[in-house]
Amino acid sequence: MKTIKLGLLGLGTVGGGTLKILQENADILSQRVPARFEVKRIAVRDLNKPRTVDTGGIALTDQPFTVVNDPEIDVVVELMGGTTLARELVLSAIDNGKHIVTANKALLAEHGEEVFAAAERKGVQVAYEAAVAGGIPIIKALREGLAANRIDWLAGIINGTGNYILTELKQPGADFATVLKNAQALGYAEADPTFDVEGIDAAHKLTILASLAFGIPLQFDKVYTEGISAISADDMRFAAMLGYEIKHLGLAKRTDAGVSLRVHPTLVPKSVLLAQVSGVMNAVMTHGDQVGPTLYYGPGAGAGPTASAVVADLVDVARTMDCKAHAQVPMLGLGNRQNLTVLGMDEVRCACYLRFLAKDVPGVLAKFSGVLAQAGISVEHMHQEPCDDESGDALVVLITDEVTEAAMNRAISKLESLDEIDGAVQRIRIETLN
Amino acid sequence: MKTIKLGLLGLGTVGGGTLKILQENADILSQRVPARFEVKRIAVRDLNKPRTVDTGGIALTDQPFTVVNDPEIDVVVELMGGTTLARELVLSAIDNGKHIVTANKALLAEHGEEVFAAAERKGVQVAYEAAVAGGIPIIKALREGLAANRIDWLAGIINGTGNYILTELKQPGADFATVLKNAQALGYAEADPTFDVEGIDAAHKLTILASLAFGIPLQFDKVYTEGISAISADDMRFAAMLGYEIKHLGLAKRTDAGVSLRVHPTLVPKSVLLAQVSGVMNAVMTHGDQVGPTLYYGPGAGAGPTASAVVADLVDVARTMDCKAHAQVPMLGLGNRQNLTVLGMDEVRCACYLRFLAKDVPGVLAKFSGVLAQAGISVEHMHQEPCDDESGDALVVLITDEVTEAAMNRAISKLESLDEIDGAVQRIRIETLN
Repeated sequence: MKTIKLGLLGLGTVGGGTLKILQENADILSQRVPARFEVKRIAVRDLNKPRTVDTGGIALTDQPFTVVNDPEIDVVVELMGGTTLARELVLSAIDNGKHIVTANKALLAEHGEEVFAAAERKGVQVAYEAAVAGGIPIIKALREGLAANRIDWLAGIINGTGNYILTELKQPGADFATVLKNAQALGYAEADPTFDVEGIDAAHKLTILASLAFGIPLQFDKVYTEGISAISADDMRFAAMLGYEIKHLGLAKRTDAGVSLRVHPTLVPKSVLLAQVSGVMNAVMTHGDQVGPTLYYGPGAGAGPTASAVVADLVDVARTMDCKAHAQVPMLGLGNRQNLTVLGMDEVRCACYLRFLAKDVPGVLAKFSGVLAQAGISVEHMHQEPCDDESGDALVVLITDEVTEAAMNRAISKLESLDEIDGAVQRIRIETLN
Repeated sequence: MKTIKLGLLGLGTVGGGTLKILQENADILSQRVPARFEVKRIAVRDLNKPRTVDTGGIALTDQPFTVVNDPEIDVVVELMGGTTLARELVLSAIDNGKHIVTANKALLAEHGEEVFAAAERKGVQVAYEAAVAGGIPIIKALREGLAANRIDWLAGIINGTGNYILTELKQPGADFATVLKNAQALGYAEADPTFDVEGIDAAHKLTILASLAFGIPLQFDKVYTEGISAISADDMRFAAMLGYEIKHLGLAKRTDAGVSLRVHPTLVPKSVLLAQVSGVMNAVMTHGDQVGPTLYYGPGAGAGPTASAVVADLVDVARTMDCKAHAQVPMLGLGNRQNLTVLGMDEVRCACYLRFLAKDVPGVLAKFSGVLAQAGISVEHMHQEPCDDESGDALVVLITDEVTEAAMNRAISKLESLDEIDGAVQRIRIETLN
């Protein structure tokens, strides 16, 4: 049986999980591909850090270039994160003719074009199932399982932290700050939660998914990104009352005019399975021209789930590493990629949920409905209820029909300039996903 | 670019769908694998039947052996169904060195051992993504996406007809006969619905899934199979009241004692995503030792979805058909399969939902609770309500804790022999899927 020698960059949560699977399930792995995986070297930041996983016999080093330069190593497994040193190491490893397995979504979203081009020139594979939605084999589904399809759109809950926060916000009396604090205490959110809460992590993953789905270049800078910190418990309650859940979605949609790439809070009808995905779990729903809708659900993070994806990639790479190129799945799904127009957010069309405070004065309804009518925006549903306080003001919630973002932005500006409306207008986009 | 010549057996719904994808998405397919698919021959039952799909230029024949014996054909796509002629044709094609792509779950569940052994001897591939759950790439997920895992269990809604009927049974006033008639009128159920309603189709699919999950032989005859025709609208209502949905599940579970293979109506907690899968849609949930729970959802039947899976298989086969064996995914996932004990149903342990009619006589509660206590069965929850009629009888619903099937069968016999209980005891097993 052939031995495949691995070099690991990083021995944190996912690195430890990967080592554990390679040890615990070695019997299964060697039945899936007639090979034995041997971890030869592991690069860590701090050699003195105590480890929970057994590294007996494996050379640990704090010099990561000794891993990517080791001529015996066949596959470099990059689990260190970051986009500077990781990029250099991955490019060096490729240059040395090594295959790459990585969980690094930021690296691929921001430098993927460079990395994949280098790999193609060198004839090595870069596998990255673990980079999106942890343990869910969504890369494989899009690239192979749905190979017969032209993908029309995809929508994903691809950040567990955000989904946990939105799920907890549904509790009566919850508020964003407290929920976030609890999430941090539970280890679901980082001390600095920006990356998750503001949608940057989701935008990295969406960049990769959209490239796979439509065969477009990786273009993280073109993803419209909006976080969830402005979502209130009131929004959750109104959404539920109107038959929706609010989810922080990564969305990639193809229309005749171009594709839209966006991450933002979204009202999704409760009847759509994706709306029922709660807590830290992830899910990606996609629509193919032949298959219609499919959905993939599972844990999006954690040692076991992410390492499960890393090791599945190792098995795939091991199978075809000594085959001709055509035996390998094209790294981004399609052999030739096309440069479809990415729509500016102004051109995107969405139905919207609007919430604002209307003062207790005569004619207020006529005023704000006049603004919307003038902008050509139809109101599909309206709900009004008195505020909790003594003001006599009313909380107004509207569901509009589909309208361009530009028109909606203009209408919101006008609404906010009305004397009869207090404070900002909350706008959350709606996607029916059908 | 290489041309791969296909022979189709069958040009019904799925055959037509396959031809359509090969025509419509030829550009995408040739970017996924540098090859061109050419359908050279199609065998049909009736040459005079009008066709909705364009077969211009393709030789149609009613002599299927001319397809499997054509030396130019590389891959035979078997979409005719049945287990007699289909088996002969598939074995002949394999003998002639052709790869097989099939959607035939019955053939594989009943004759899979013979078919896969023949393919292995001959060094050809038998691909069958379309045989289970239509357009959902569940075979690929189990065999490749979850390759790092030992699968603990899987549970699937793998018959759309049954799921549609159970979904409709939730409507107030619904009854099984009427719902079935509507399903037939809509084309969701066959004129003779036995195959779907009694769980035989689901048992075929479960046989294949279980073999993949645990690396056990295909053994359709060992699947315990129970249909849904005894489920009433009352059961749906009580289940909902107690926080459950009733789903017709295919279940494969591994315990230290052995594996259980079963298809039966099942109460699933509403909070489990699988419980929220409604209508004709399919879904498979599985639990891997490393990844934990994942779920795969989509359309389980129909021309487009099933053909989507057939064509994905064609792409996979095309990629590795001229590679060494180790480049190909082992057809049943693991190189060596193990003969785990399949538990007899008597040994299976389940919590249960019981429903029966108790007469309006003193001491009835003491009587039936005595029977259960004597059998060592704890009652977790009890609900009692008066019958709709004038009898004064009560509808009793119990949720028990986990108990062996043998003990529950004995207890049910005793309950049914009580004078205080009218008619049969309805028993539906519960799975919490956590």
